[in-house]
Amino acid sequence: MNFTMKEAIEILERTPQTLAFFLSGLSEGWVTCNEGEGTWNASEVIDHLIEGENNNWLPRLAFILQEGEGRPFPRFDRYSHLNQKEERTMEQKLQEFKNVRAQNIAKLKTLIDPAVHLEWTGSHPAFGPVKVRELISTWAVHDLTHIAQIVRVMAERYRTDVGPWVEYLGILKKRS
Amino acid sequence: MNFTMKEAIEILERTPQTLAFFLSGLSEGWVTCNEGEGTWNASEVIDHLIEGENNNWLPRLAFILQEGEGRPFPRFDRYSHLNQKEERTMEQKLQEFKNVRAQNIAKLKTLIDPAVHLEWTGSHPAFGPVKVRELISTWAVHDLTHIAQIVRVMAERYRTDVGPWVEYLGILKKRS
Repeated sequence: MNFTMKEAIEILERTPQTLAFFLSGLSEGWVTCNEGEGTWNASEVIDHLIEGENNNWLPRLAFILQEGEGRPFPRFDRYSHLNQKEERTMEQKLQEFKNVRAQNIAKLKTLIDPAVHLEWTGSHPAFGPVKVRELISTWAVHDLTHIAQIVRVMAERYRTDVGPWVEYLGILKKRS
Repeated sequence: MNFTMKEAIEILERTPQTLAFFLSGLSEGWVTCNEGEGTWNASEVIDHLIEGENNNWLPRLAFILQEGEGRPFPRFDRYSHLNQKEERTMEQKLQEFKNVRAQNIAKLKTLIDPAVHLEWTGSHPAFGPVKVRELISTWAVHDLTHIAQIVRVMAERYRTDVGPWVEYLGILKKRS
Protein backbone atom coordinates (compact mmCIF):
# COMPACT_ATOMS: atom_id res chain seq x y z
CA MET A 1 0.00 0.00 0.00
CA ASN A 2 1.32 3.41 -0.98
CA PHE A 3 -1.64 5.42 0.24
CA THR A 4 -1.40 7.88 3.08
CA MET A 5 -3.99 10.54 3.86
CA LYS A 6 -1.33 13.22 3.87
CA GLU A 7 -0.01 12.36 0.42
CA ALA A 8 -3.45 11.91 -1.12
CA ILE A 9 -4.35 15.38 0.16
CA GLU A 10 -1.21 16.75 -1.53
CA ILE A 11 -2.79 15.85 -4.88
CA LEU A 12 -6.30 16.97 -3.93
CA GLU A 13 -5.10 20.39 -2.81
CA ARG A 14 -3.01 21.01 -5.95
CA THR A 15 -5.44 20.07 -8.70
CA PRO A 16 -7.73 23.12 -8.77
CA GLN A 17 -4.94 25.69 -8.88
CA THR A 18 -2.98 23.60 -11.38
CA LEU A 19 -5.93 23.52 -13.74
CA ALA A 20 -6.60 27.20 -13.10
CA PHE A 21 -3.06 28.06 -14.24
CA PHE A 22 -3.34 25.85 -17.27
CA LEU A 23 -6.83 26.73 -18.48
CA SER A 24 -7.34 30.38 -17.54
CA GLY A 25 -7.20 32.79 -20.43
CA LEU A 26 -6.90 30.15 -23.14
CA SER A 27 -8.42 30.80 -26.54
CA GLU A 28 -11.89 29.42 -27.10
CA GLY A 29 -10.55 26.73 -29.44
CA TRP A 30 -8.56 25.03 -26.67
CA VAL A 31 -11.44 25.08 -24.21
CA THR A 32 -14.18 23.84 -26.51
CA CYS A 33 -12.33 21.20 -28.52
CA ASN A 34 -13.13 17.57 -27.78
CA GLU A 35 -12.33 14.12 -29.11
CA GLY A 36 -15.48 13.84 -31.20
CA GLU A 37 -19.18 13.16 -30.69
CA GLY A 38 -20.07 12.29 -27.10
CA THR A 39 -16.69 13.27 -25.62
CA TRP A 40 -15.99 16.06 -23.15
CA ASN A 41 -14.16 19.32 -23.67
CA ALA A 42 -12.00 20.86 -20.92
CA SER A 43 -14.88 22.97 -19.68
CA GLU A 44 -17.13 19.93 -19.25
CA VAL A 45 -14.37 18.13 -17.34
CA ILE A 46 -14.29 21.00 -14.83
CA ASP A 47 -18.09 20.74 -14.49
CA HIS A 48 -17.65 17.04 -13.76
CA LEU A 49 -14.98 17.71 -11.13
CA ILE A 50 -17.24 20.24 -9.39
CA GLU A 51 -20.13 17.76 -9.52
CA GLY A 52 -17.92 15.13 -7.84
CA GLU A 53 -17.09 17.56 -5.05
CA ASN A 54 -20.76 18.27 -4.44
CA ASN A 55 -22.27 14.81 -4.81
CA ASN A 56 -19.68 12.06 -4.82
CA TRP A 57 -16.57 11.99 -2.66
CA LEU A 58 -17.43 13.61 0.64
CA PRO A 59 -21.07 12.46 0.70
CA ARG A 60 -19.91 8.87 0.14
CA LEU A 61 -17.32 9.09 2.90
CA ALA A 62 -19.93 10.44 5.28
CA PHE A 63 -22.30 7.67 4.14
CA ILE A 64 -19.72 4.99 4.93
CA LEU A 65 -19.11 6.40 8.40
CA GLN A 66 -22.81 6.45 9.09
CA GLU A 67 -24.10 3.31 7.37
CA GLY A 68 -21.11 1.01 7.06
CA GLU A 69 -22.00 -1.82 4.72
CA GLY A 70 -25.63 -1.70 5.83
CA ARG A 71 -26.87 0.13 2.75
CA PRO A 72 -25.15 0.63 -0.60
CA PHE A 73 -24.45 4.28 -1.27
CA PRO A 74 -26.60 6.08 -3.81
CA ARG A 75 -25.40 5.87 -7.38
CA PHE A 76 -23.46 8.85 -8.66
CA ASP A 77 -24.53 10.04 -12.09
CA ARG A 78 -21.27 10.68 -13.88
CA TYR A 79 -23.03 12.58 -16.64
CA SER A 80 -25.33 14.84 -14.65
CA HIS A 81 -23.17 17.91 -15.25
CA LEU A 82 -23.96 17.64 -18.96
CA ASN A 83 -27.56 18.55 -18.19
CA GLN A 84 -26.65 21.80 -16.51
CA LYS A 85 -28.24 24.73 -18.18
CA GLU A 86 -26.60 27.70 -16.57
CA GLU A 87 -23.83 29.46 -18.40
CA ARG A 88 -20.65 30.09 -16.49
CA THR A 89 -17.29 31.17 -17.81
CA MET A 90 -14.28 28.90 -17.48
CA GLU A 91 -12.84 31.34 -14.92
CA GLN A 92 -15.98 31.12 -12.81
CA LYS A 93 -15.93 27.33 -12.95
CA LEU A 94 -12.27 27.14 -11.99
CA GLN A 95 -12.90 29.45 -9.06
CA GLU A 96 -15.87 27.35 -7.96
CA PHE A 97 -13.80 24.17 -8.16
CA LYS A 98 -11.10 25.81 -6.02
CA ASN A 99 -13.62 26.91 -3.40
CA VAL A 100 -15.55 23.68 -3.10
CA ARG A 101 -12.38 21.57 -3.08
CA ALA A 102 -10.84 23.66 -0.31
CA GLN A 103 -14.01 23.27 1.76
CA ASN A 104 -14.05 19.52 1.14
CA ILE A 105 -10.44 19.02 2.14
CA ALA A 106 -11.19 20.83 5.39
CA LYS A 107 -14.21 18.59 5.94
CA LEU A 108 -12.20 15.48 5.05
CA LYS A 109 -9.67 16.29 7.74
CA THR A 110 -12.44 16.71 10.29
CA LEU A 111 -14.37 13.64 9.20
CA ILE A 112 -11.62 11.09 8.78
CA ASP A 113 -9.08 10.24 11.44
CA PRO A 114 -6.42 8.17 9.63
CA ALA A 115 -5.64 6.32 12.83
CA VAL A 116 -9.26 5.16 13.08
CA HIS A 117 -11.28 5.17 9.86
CA LEU A 118 -9.16 4.09 6.92
CA GLU A 119 -10.18 0.43 7.02
CA TRP A 120 -13.86 1.12 7.60
CA THR A 121 -16.02 -0.24 4.80
CA GLY A 122 -19.11 0.75 2.90
CA SER A 123 -21.04 -0.94 0.16
CA HIS A 124 -20.63 0.23 -3.43
CA PRO A 125 -23.71 -0.50 -5.54
CA ALA A 126 -21.63 -2.20 -8.23
CA PHE A 127 -18.48 -3.39 -6.41
CA GLY A 128 -19.74 -4.39 -2.99
CA PRO A 129 -17.43 -3.72 -0.02
CA VAL A 130 -15.06 -0.76 -0.40
CA LYS A 131 -12.75 0.84 2.13
CA VAL A 132 -12.47 4.45 3.19
CA ARG A 133 -8.83 4.48 2.10
CA GLU A 134 -9.78 3.12 -1.33
CA LEU A 135 -12.33 5.88 -1.77
CA ILE A 136 -9.83 8.60 -0.85
CA SER A 137 -7.18 7.04 -3.12
CA THR A 138 -9.71 7.02 -5.93
CA TRP A 139 -10.56 10.67 -5.32
CA ALA A 140 -6.90 11.58 -5.87
CA VAL A 141 -6.42 9.34 -8.92
CA HIS A 142 -9.69 10.67 -10.33
CA ASP A 143 -8.03 14.12 -10.36
CA LEU A 144 -5.05 12.67 -12.22
CA THR A 145 -7.20 10.88 -14.79
CA HIS A 146 -9.04 14.09 -15.60
CA ILE A 147 -5.88 16.18 -15.86
CA ALA A 148 -4.64 13.56 -18.31
CA GLN A 149 -7.93 13.71 -20.17
CA ILE A 150 -7.80 17.50 -20.50
CA VAL A 151 -4.33 17.55 -22.04
CA ARG A 152 -5.16 14.57 -24.28
CA VAL A 153 -8.26 16.32 -25.61
CA MET A 154 -6.25 19.45 -26.30
CA ALA A 155 -3.47 17.51 -28.02
CA GLU A 156 -6.05 15.93 -30.32
CA ARG A 157 -6.75 19.38 -31.75
CA TYR A 158 -3.26 19.44 -33.29
CA ARG A 159 -3.27 15.82 -34.50
CA THR A 160 -2.76 16.74 -38.14
CA ASP A 161 -0.86 19.95 -37.41
CA VAL A 162 2.14 18.10 -36.00
CA GLY A 163 2.72 16.42 -39.35
CA PRO A 164 5.08 13.42 -39.28
CA TRP A 165 5.90 13.95 -35.58
CA VAL A 166 2.58 12.28 -34.74
CA GLU A 167 4.64 9.10 -34.63
CA TYR A 168 6.73 10.34 -31.68
CA LEU A 169 3.89 11.76 -29.61
CA GLY A 170 2.50 9.14 -27.25
CA ILE A 171 -0.51 11.25 -26.37
CA LEU A 172 -1.77 10.97 -29.96
CA LYS A 173 -1.54 7.19 -30.07
CA LYS A 174 -5.04 5.79 -30.30
CA ARG A 175 -5.88 3.26 -27.64
CA SER A 176 -7.06 0.01 -29.11
CA MET B 1 -5.33 23.18 -39.81
CA ASN B 2 -6.00 24.35 -36.26
CA PHE B 3 -2.50 25.72 -35.59
CA THR B 4 -1.86 29.37 -34.98
CA MET B 5 1.35 30.79 -33.47
CA LYS B 6 -0.65 32.69 -30.89
CA GLU B 7 -2.54 29.65 -29.64
CA ALA B 8 0.49 27.37 -29.64
CA ILE B 9 2.29 29.96 -27.50
CA GLU B 10 -0.65 29.91 -25.07
CA ILE B 11 0.26 26.30 -24.27
CA LEU B 12 4.02 26.88 -24.24
CA GLU B 13 3.76 29.74 -21.79
CA ARG B 14 1.44 27.88 -19.37
CA THR B 15 3.26 24.57 -19.01
CA PRO B 16 6.14 25.57 -16.70
CA GLN B 17 3.94 27.41 -14.24
CA THR B 18 1.36 24.62 -14.29
CA LEU B 19 3.95 21.96 -13.54
CA ALA B 20 5.66 24.16 -10.96
CA PHE B 21 2.44 24.47 -9.03
CA PHE B 22 1.56 20.81 -9.36
CA LEU B 23 4.96 19.36 -8.45
CA SER B 24 6.39 21.81 -5.92
CA GLY B 25 6.40 20.60 -2.37
CA LEU B 26 5.16 17.09 -3.11
CA SER B 27 6.34 14.21 -0.97
CA GLU B 28 9.30 12.29 -2.29
CA GLY B 29 7.12 9.29 -3.16
CA TRP B 30 5.18 11.24 -5.80
CA VAL B 31 8.28 12.70 -7.41
CA THR B 32 10.36 9.54 -7.57
CA CYS B 33 7.73 6.96 -8.50
CA ASN B 34 7.78 5.60 -12.03
CA GLU B 35 6.08 2.96 -14.15
CA GLY B 36 8.81 0.38 -13.70
CA GLU B 37 12.31 -0.35 -15.00
CA GLY B 38 13.42 2.06 -17.71
CA THR B 39 10.55 4.51 -17.24
CA TRP B 40 10.80 8.13 -16.11
CA ASN B 41 9.70 9.71 -12.87
CA ALA B 42 8.30 13.26 -12.75
CA SER B 43 11.70 14.69 -12.00
CA GLU B 44 13.24 13.06 -15.07
CA VAL B 45 10.43 14.38 -17.23
CA ILE B 46 11.30 17.92 -16.13
CA ASP B 47 14.95 17.25 -17.02
CA HIS B 48 13.80 16.14 -20.46
CA LEU B 49 11.69 19.27 -20.93
CA ILE B 50 14.66 21.48 -20.02
CA GLU B 51 16.88 19.52 -22.41
CA GLY B 52 14.38 20.11 -25.22
CA GLU B 53 14.45 23.85 -24.52
CA ASN B 54 18.22 23.90 -24.73
CA ASN B 55 18.87 21.56 -27.62
CA ASN B 56 15.78 20.76 -29.61
CA TRP B 57 13.01 23.23 -30.42
CA LEU B 58 14.62 26.61 -30.88
CA PRO B 59 17.88 25.30 -32.35
CA ARG B 60 15.92 23.32 -34.94
CA LEU B 61 13.77 26.30 -35.87
CA ALA B 62 16.90 28.41 -36.33
CA PHE B 63 18.44 25.58 -38.34
CA ILE B 64 15.44 25.48 -40.70
CA LEU B 65 15.58 29.22 -41.26
CA GLN B 66 19.27 29.02 -42.04
CA GLU B 67 19.61 25.75 -43.94
CA GLY B 68 16.15 25.00 -45.35
CA GLU B 69 16.12 21.44 -46.61
CA GLY B 70 19.80 21.65 -47.55
CA ARG B 71 21.02 19.70 -44.55
CA PRO B 72 19.06 17.48 -42.16
CA PHE B 73 19.10 18.86 -38.64
CA PRO B 74 21.27 17.18 -36.06
CA ARG B 75 19.64 14.33 -34.20
CA PHE B 76 18.26 15.14 -30.78
CA ASP B 77 19.15 12.63 -28.09
CA ARG B 78 15.89 12.13 -26.20
CA TYR B 79 17.69 10.34 -23.40
CA SER B 80 20.66 12.63 -22.82
CA HIS B 81 19.16 14.11 -19.64
CA LEU B 82 19.41 10.69 -18.04
CA ASN B 83 23.19 11.00 -18.14
CA GLN B 84 23.26 14.21 -16.17
CA LYS B 85 25.21 13.88 -13.02
CA GLU B 86 24.51 17.04 -11.12
CA GLU B 87 21.97 16.98 -8.36
CA ARG B 88 19.29 19.62 -8.43
CA THR B 89 16.13 19.79 -6.40
CA MET B 90 12.74 19.61 -8.10
CA GLU B 91 12.21 23.27 -7.21
CA GLN B 92 15.47 24.25 -8.93
CA LYS B 93 14.56 22.28 -12.03
CA LEU B 94 11.09 23.78 -12.21
CA GLN B 95 12.57 27.26 -11.91
CA GLU B 96 15.10 26.51 -14.62
CA PHE B 97 12.36 25.22 -16.91
CA LYS B 98 10.37 28.41 -16.33
CA ASN B 99 13.37 30.61 -17.10
CA VAL B 100 14.55 28.85 -20.23
CA ARG B 101 11.02 28.51 -21.60
CA ALA B 102 10.34 32.23 -21.10
CA GLN B 103 13.58 33.06 -22.93
CA ASN B 104 12.70 30.70 -25.75
CA ILE B 105 9.20 32.08 -26.24
CA ALA B 106 10.74 35.54 -26.53
CA LYS B 107 13.24 34.24 -29.09
CA LEU B 108 10.51 32.39 -30.98
CA LYS B 109 8.57 35.62 -31.39
CA THR B 110 11.66 37.36 -32.74
CA LEU B 111 12.71 34.51 -34.99
CA ILE B 112 9.42 33.50 -36.57
CA ASP B 113 7.11 35.88 -38.37
CA PRO B 114 3.87 33.92 -38.81
CA ALA B 115 3.10 35.86 -41.97
CA VAL B 116 6.36 34.71 -43.52
CA HIS B 117 7.92 31.57 -42.08
CA LEU B 118 5.25 29.01 -41.16
CA GLU B 119 5.44 27.07 -44.43
CA TRP B 120 9.23 27.08 -44.61
CA THR B 121 10.68 23.58 -44.56
CA GLY B 122 13.66 21.82 -43.12
CA SER B 123 14.82 18.25 -43.34
CA HIS B 124 14.25 15.90 -40.42
CA PRO B 125 16.80 13.08 -40.30
CA ALA B 126 14.08 10.43 -40.04
CA PHE B 127 11.00 12.05 -41.62
CA GLY B 128 12.41 14.18 -44.42
CA PRO B 129 10.69 17.51 -45.13
CA VAL B 130 9.00 19.17 -42.15
CA LYS B 131 7.44 22.60 -41.85
CA VAL B 132 8.09 25.33 -39.31
CA ARG B 133 4.45 25.23 -38.25
CA GLU B 134 4.64 21.46 -37.73
CA LEU B 135 7.67 21.88 -35.49
CA ILE B 136 5.97 24.56 -33.37
CA SER B 137 2.77 22.47 -33.17
CA THR B 138 4.87 19.53 -32.01
CA TRP B 139 6.58 21.66 -29.38
CA ALA B 140 3.16 22.45 -27.85
CA VAL B 141 1.84 18.88 -28.07
CA HIS B 142 5.11 17.64 -26.61
CA ASP B 143 4.27 19.68 -23.49
CA LEU B 144 0.85 18.06 -23.35
CA THR B 145 2.21 14.54 -23.78
CA HIS B 146 4.60 15.03 -20.87
CA ILE B 147 1.98 16.55 -18.58
CA ALA B 148 -0.12 13.46 -19.33
CA GLN B 149 2.88 11.26 -18.63
CA ILE B 150 3.55 12.87 -15.25
CA VAL B 151 0.01 12.39 -13.98
CA ARG B 152 -0.14 8.85 -15.41
CA VAL B 153 3.09 7.90 -13.62
CA MET B 154 1.76 9.32 -10.37
CA ALA B 155 -1.59 7.53 -10.75
CA GLU B 156 0.28 4.25 -11.19
CA ARG B 157 1.54 4.59 -7.64
CA TYR B 158 -2.03 4.10 -6.34
CA ARG B 159 -2.97 1.29 -8.75
CA THR B 160 -3.70 -1.20 -5.99
CA ASP B 161 -4.74 1.42 -3.45
CA VAL B 162 -7.88 2.36 -5.38
CA GLY B 163 -9.23 -1.17 -4.95
CA PRO B 164 -12.16 -2.07 -7.22
CA TRP B 165 -12.38 1.47 -8.61
CA VAL B 166 -9.43 0.63 -10.87
CA GLU B 167 -12.11 -0.38 -13.35
CA TYR B 168 -13.50 3.17 -13.61
CA LEU B 169 -10.17 4.99 -13.86
CA GLY B 170 -9.11 5.37 -17.48
CA ILE B 171 -5.63 6.50 -16.53
CA LEU B 172 -4.91 3.05 -15.03
CA LYS B 173 -5.97 1.15 -18.13
CA LYS B 174 -2.93 -0.51 -19.64
CA ARG B 175 -2.36 0.30 -23.27
CA SER B 176 -2.15 -2.81 -25.35
